[in-house]
Amino acid sequence: MSEHAPIRKNEIAVEFPAATDGSLVFIGRIHTPWNTRGECPRRGREDGPICRIEIFEPWVAAIEGIERHERLEALYWLHQSRRDLVKQSPKNDGVVHGTFSLRSPQRPNPIGTQIVRFVKVENNDIFVRGLDCVNGTPLIDLKPDLCPFSGKTG
Amino acid sequence: MSEHAPIRKNEIAVEFPAATDGSLVFIGRIHTPWNTRGECPRRGREDGPICRIEIFEPWVAAIEGIERHERLEALYWLHQSRRDLVKQSPKNDGVVHGTFSLRSPQRPNPIGTQIVRFVKVENNDIFVRGLDCVNGTPLIDLKPDLCPFSGKTG
Repeated sequence: MSEHAPIRKNEIAVEFPAATDGSLVFIGRIHTPWNTRGECPRRGREDGPICRIEIFEPWVAAIEGIERHERLEALYWLHQSRRDLVKQSPKNDGVVHGTFSLRSPQRPNPIGTQIVRFVKVENNDIFVRGLDCVNGTPLIDLKPDLCPFSGKTG
Repeated sequence: MSEHAPIRKNEIAVEFPAATDGSLVFIGRIHTPWNTRGECPRRGREDGPICRIEIFEPWVAAIEGIERHERLEALYWLHQSRRDLVKQSPKNDGVVHGTFSLRSPQRPNPIGTQIVRFVKVENNDIFVRGLDCVNGTPLIDLKPDLCPFSGKTG
């Protein structure tokens, strides 16, 4: 992963396995106001700007019924991330934490998850609030939110 | 995807794209009491049985610090799913819904997400409650839960 910047003090990178075990298909693209990672908000907000989730064919028919759900869960591919860090220093202060104890985008499978609020659907576009990812992020899944342990969908 | 059963009345399958856009590495395996999909509970429960998430090398060092989080988000690969359905009939009654309006395991990228309650960590095993997946399910990510819009991690 030589395209990435050097790692920070005390961070640990491993040799990323050559074999890959599963394959993803990008089913859409997320359009947000933020064109670089530096511009992105640290967290999505319920009252954040309306963003557009564009669905690609052949998946457009799968949108039907989505308007029944106030909250959706979006999964997307954090395509700018390095995948080989097991210890990371988010504050770049030499203090490191295990990757699984952080929500950092740098992870072995860089999948972002976000609960978003449904606004409207138009043709192959779904408009939502609550995203925080960079413009152009590939979409990998969209489903109704299941509130943890409540037994109810959003 | 000829290994799957015929689709149900009114369900729609598409030709799954040959090209794949991203690749996953399985970072662990989930051990649960349920050996078939039929045995699995419909939803994970906070007071459900303790399950074991086994982490593979080279990712074991990434566990450090996970015990600080009461709730974790697990992402796993629903390896028994077909991926080509855009309309589905969960009740097999001829009534179909778009895949993105369902949490069905049959989806273009069959990734399950579940909020679980941390119990303990021992070596490369993390014990949690709240899972509902079949024994042997491949793990693809584990991170602290971010409660929707609350601005706090679990």
